[in-house]
Amino acid sequence: MLILGIDPGSHKTGYGLVESRGSRLVLIEQGILRAPTKASVPARLAYLNRGLSEVLDRNTPDLASLETPFYGLNVKSLIVLCQARGALLVEIARRQIEILDYSPAEVKSAVTGNGRATKAQVARMVGLLVGQDPTSWSTDASDAMAVAICCARRYRLDRLALLQKPRK
Amino acid sequence: MLILGIDPGSHKTGYGLVESRGSRLVLIEQGILRAPTKASVPARLAYLNRGLSEVLDRNTPDLASLETPFYGLNVKSLIVLCQARGALLVEIARRQIEILDYSPAEVKSAVTGNGRATKAQVARMVGLLVGQDPTSWSTDASDAMAVAICCARRYRLDRLALLQKPRK
Repeated sequence: MLILGIDPGSHKTGYGLVESRGSRLVLIEQGILRAPTKASVPARLAYLNRGLSEVLDRNTPDLASLETPFYGLNVKSLIVLCQARGALLVEIARRQIEILDYSPAEVKSAVTGNGRATKAQVARMVGLLVGQDPTSWSTDASDAMAVAICCARRYRLDRLALLQKPRK
Repeated sequence: MLILGIDPGSHKTGYGLVESRGSRLVLIEQGILRAPTKASVPARLAYLNRGLSEVLDRNTPDLASLETPFYGLNVKSLIVLCQARGALLVEIARRQIEILDYSPAEVKSAVTGNGRATKAQVARMVGLLVGQDPTSWSTDASDAMAVAICCARRYRLDRLALLQKPRK
């Protein structure tokens, strides 16, 4: 199962594609979509959308995963972040790829066992899990890989719980 | 000058295309993009994006205008609204159409002369300005037309002010 993880931002959006092969996790691709800093917000959104579209032309993930927006952000940052999410989600949904959300604490906990781990701890653990050196990764990319790993680990469990839930 | 006005919403997005011919305002097209109610958020975003894309295949506006997000919304509504904005903005920006934002009060004031006008008052005034009966319009569509009219009225003024602003 190939899983896309995204860490959205209107200037830099991190992404990572992680393949779950039984209990093994294999990193397929990771990077950042970097919008031109001086561009307007809509131009940046178009840039991020096009960048993600190129990633999805090269790879066909079975699932995509993002962190739920962080409620502690100030309103202005939240607006900009959620617009970036919308610009990215639309591209994933257009390709009919299922999208799952996990809270920041869920992601950290699934990857490091600690819901309050630092970004450096997350990156180190992601490196260990995919068997690669994380030092050259940007934080946005390692956060994106962490979401994909969380999704890989949680997906089957969530599905199972859903199947066992009594119907309304 | 042809101006697109949008009133974004993740379930229903109103739109209106208004042409400014000297002092006359001519309504070219108005309507709602209605996403399937039971669809997931990303599926709704993809639907709205595709709907707007169809509108923009039929029309080539010189400018697009939206209301700035309303800060009084609760966080959950703001997230959903801004994601819808992102899904729509990306389609406009992809076509390299300039996008302008106006606050709800600016829109109401430009159309009715009262920054705190009701939606019904806005719709009535939009009807008068474009010489059409507003009774069959949805509120989302009349709000979208109001933004386009505000944009038509404000655009030249804003440009002029910008040109007269001393350079940094």
